[in-house]
Amino acid sequence: MFKVPDHQVAGHRGPLVDDSGRFYKPLQNNERGTKEVAFYTSFSANSKIPTHVRRYFPIYHGTQFLESSDGSGMHPHLVLQDIVSNRQNPSVMDIKMGSRTCYPQASEDYITRCFQKDRESTSVPLGFKICGLQTYDSEKLGYWKPQKDVVKKFTSEDVKMTLKRFVSSNSSSDAEPDCLRATKVYGGSDGILAQLLELKAWFEDQTIYHFNSCSILMVYGQGVEDGAQVKLVDFAHVVDGEGVIDHNFLGGLCVLIKFVSDILVSSTTRSKTTA
Amino acid sequence: MFKVPDHQVAGHRGPLVDDSGRFYKPLQNNERGTKEVAFYTSFSANSKIPTHVRRYFPIYHGTQFLESSDGSGMHPHLVLQDIVSNRQNPSVMDIKMGSRTCYPQASEDYITRCFQKDRESTSVPLGFKICGLQTYDSEKLGYWKPQKDVVKKFTSEDVKMTLKRFVSSNSSSDAEPDCLRATKVYGGSDGILAQLLELKAWFEDQTIYHFNSCSILMVYGQGVEDGAQVKLVDFAHVVDGEGVIDHNFLGGLCVLIKFVSDILVSSTTRSKTTA
Repeated sequence: MFKVPDHQVAGHRGPLVDDSGRFYKPLQNNERGTKEVAFYTSFSANSKIPTHVRRYFPIYHGTQFLESSDGSGMHPHLVLQDIVSNRQNPSVMDIKMGSRTCYPQASEDYITRCFQKDRESTSVPLGFKICGLQTYDSEKLGYWKPQKDVVKKFTSEDVKMTLKRFVSSNSSSDAEPDCLRATKVYGGSDGILAQLLELKAWFEDQTIYHFNSCSILMVYGQGVEDGAQVKLVDFAHVVDGEGVIDHNFLGGLCVLIKFVSDILVSSTTRSKTTA
Repeated sequence: MFKVPDHQVAGHRGPLVDDSGRFYKPLQNNERGTKEVAFYTSFSANSKIPTHVRRYFPIYHGTQFLESSDGSGMHPHLVLQDIVSNRQNPSVMDIKMGSRTCYPQASEDYITRCFQKDRESTSVPLGFKICGLQTYDSEKLGYWKPQKDVVKKFTSEDVKMTLKRFVSSNSSSDAEPDCLRATKVYGGSDGILAQLLELKAWFEDQTIYHFNSCSILMVYGQGVEDGAQVKLVDFAHVVDGEGVIDHNFLGGLCVLIKFVSDILVSSTTRSKTTA
């Protein structure tokens, strides 16, 4: 009944999925697991979260003790919606948000190490970093799924290029990305860009949570009526917003929106020119 | 003809003003001065800057050699528009923008020291810090102008309170700020909030400059037809945006907008309740 997920592109090992569309994430150690449960519990019960915003979060089904995937015995798991179930050949990107991926309440040492890591990645210059991705090109070409250590070294220019390849049908080749799916995936009234803009509008107002070290998942592919989806995941470092908007998340979101919108504009211009 | 400005609330000593509305800022050492001249030159000549955005920058009149105010001989000065000339009893606030006030191109040592400073101020939690201010209450009460070392210790709550006191007529007293001028100064179709929102719209799109360590000045008081003004100042650390929006500035701007807008909402609600 349980199996290891086929389409995980980033994050820790250990999650399981079942065939009913649920995703079982082992609770992390060091209070992180407890904190993530606390977030889901608080979020589910919070009447101040607008309905149109809830769709950007995985549905939460509580916790459950399960045999670990590594056979190390019973372990508590978060039971969540499996974002990529019901999709054939999904294309998935995991983007960790924030120019600072640690939370200010952490220890001095941890912050210094974390800040160093942020400076070596695109977190500081862009306000986000790509943690992993896979793009399905075609039956013949299969997936483009760059190795972890390749993704880790992405520069700002690599990030721009990867956002193009993510919506191309030739991503696994060395050719210039064709961006054939840009309009369908990024564009439209309920495409990725529209969803990111809706999220942004909420982030410009909400002061309930600060989503430290949280990721945006972008998913598309055959299924879920073929629309693309944006979801927030990984809430082990969420803290109280204390009346201040989450500018660390919002800043990176604005850059991501600009990049996606630039790709849309240039691919629309190109189709017009060649039409 | 030249005199020391009456209403400088932050920044280095040394600037001079004349009675024609010009502000003479000595070029800083360590290439900072040269960089600021380079910025003003580039900005003045850049045809991509929309006209409605130029009003948020001081008018630039070139450079001029002048006798320093400390009598140390002739020294080159930036010749700029004096923002507070033509205002009687101006209220002024200087807000340094960015959760990171140093630029990523700086040396390792400088960045570490700077990051430490940012963490000890509200730069990291809020994305901006107040560097100085004065508020004119009335002829009887005069100005509230907190000392530099008091401003330096402002917490997030102090910042919220100071933004209230800035538009109050009892700022120099210990009483709850009356926010009597909130609607006039922050509100309206060309008030501070409207101006900040116009700036934000530009920052969500522009990728020409990254305004590291730059300040927003908010000014009001008798004169300039009694409207309030937002101006950007201090461009010694501006760098090329390289196709990326300035999320470091934009993030703090969003927090500032949220705070100002919260004050407006609560003072509008209060007037309605008491009316």
